[in-house]
Amino acid sequence: MPAYRLTLAYDGTDFEGWQAQERPEAPPVRTVQGELEAALRRLAGDTPVRVAGAGRTDAGVHALGQVASFELPRAYEPPALQRALNGLLPADVRVLEAAEAPPGFHARKSALSKLYRYELDTGPVQLPTRRRHAGHVPWTLDAEAVAETAALFVGRHDFASLASAGGSARTTVRTITRSHVAFLGATLSYEVEASGFLRKMVRSIVGALIDVGRGALGPQDVGRALAARDRRAWPGPAPACGLTLVRVDYAPADAMLE
Amino acid sequence: MPAYRLTLAYDGTDFEGWQAQERPEAPPVRTVQGELEAALRRLAGDTPVRVAGAGRTDAGVHALGQVASFELPRAYEPPALQRALNGLLPADVRVLEAAEAPPGFHARKSALSKLYRYELDTGPVQLPTRRRHAGHVPWTLDAEAVAETAALFVGRHDFASLASAGGSARTTVRTITRSHVAFLGATLSYEVEASGFLRKMVRSIVGALIDVGRGALGPQDVGRALAARDRRAWPGPAPACGLTLVRVDYAPADAMLE
Repeated sequence: MPAYRLTLAYDGTDFEGWQAQERPEAPPVRTVQGELEAALRRLAGDTPVRVAGAGRTDAGVHALGQVASFELPRAYEPPALQRALNGLLPADVRVLEAAEAPPGFHARKSALSKLYRYELDTGPVQLPTRRRHAGHVPWTLDAEAVAETAALFVGRHDFASLASAGGSARTTVRTITRSHVAFLGATLSYEVEASGFLRKMVRSIVGALIDVGRGALGPQDVGRALAARDRRAWPGPAPACGLTLVRVDYAPADAMLE
Repeated sequence: MPAYRLTLAYDGTDFEGWQAQERPEAPPVRTVQGELEAALRRLAGDTPVRVAGAGRTDAGVHALGQVASFELPRAYEPPALQRALNGLLPADVRVLEAAEAPPGFHARKSALSKLYRYELDTGPVQLPTRRRHAGHVPWTLDAEAVAETAALFVGRHDFASLASAGGSARTTVRTITRSHVAFLGATLSYEVEASGFLRKMVRSIVGALIDVGRGALGPQDVGRALAARDRRAWPGPAPACGLTLVRVDYAPADAMLE
């Protein structure tokens, strides 16, 4: 069957995350995967279509460059597929690009790395226009200490201290290739790139950056807590609304056909 | 009675604008003034408090620096007043600053000028995270023609061509002191400053900028349509969601007491 990949953007505010939930006894839950599969099913004349997503974003987490892959019973011109899906999807999910998928392409398994961004506002009062898309703390953060702490995460580490109770990962070792903080006015913008992430891992890192920024912890404390591989030693995660899946990278052979 | 002024920010998405509506027969409508007056009434032990706002923003229009003035039956320390109101107000309105008002101060009548900003996204597909806070057209706009047109509005003009049917202004003459466009990536950001605005005036200007940007009108056509003083000659207004009241300026004697 013809295979496709989509680049998706969504506002995660009104979704219970990416992943469709199979709970026959419970009331239906609104997820991005669920909305996308419903739209594709309508497009495919009521044939069920199963979609794979590159990153299983949690409730409230946004995307500017999520990638999804699936097969359809018949072939579409990618621009026509994009238009048709944007006509069927709700306004808080948009297809930014559609393409034929290379043979064997799988949005999650083929992904080499993902880039997430966390935005945190630090003014005395959070601006209402930012409340859906940024975390907020009413403290001036120590920029130097935060930057020093962010750099600690680069490299291959056992992130067991950041593994959330609900996670299902077989190993808690991950390799971070970028972990960088920029301050833009009263907004801290944290970017982190890795081949894979544990559940709530980025938000847990940001929780530690906040504690360092307000002086509750030193960068060394965070290094020690990481080495301890003990969840109880780690600060709580920052709220989901500040997090965005910005980009997913693939090998050149799997890259979007322009 | 002690008089106060507030600087307010709000997300206009879920409001029917600033102004409280007196319609005893109709169901109540959610307005920013209405929410603020309800919070002040609770603070004042059920005494009704009437609030004046610098700009009567329309439904869906946001604010980063709206100014409101009112009197209270008893005196408050401004920081305590700010905290108390932020505890009583819904999350989509925040008091950024509170101060004692100088004698005779009135948020609207004392205002010397107001600065509005309109953000318009021009990518092929609007990003869902921007849909509440930016207008959108899927066209690449002619930046030079748009900038040339924006400059036409600076100075004293009769804006009768832009006066909306529902407006109540005695005169349609206004003086614009700033009218400037910046392009930041795929976002057009238009700033306009004047001592006063007609209803929907900024959105009508942006409607004309869009028509020029996509080549439907030339800058000269806009100049002629302005001189014609005929509403039928003017392009439709851009959507409210892209508009923000950024700042209100007062004479030094009326400025916020720091």
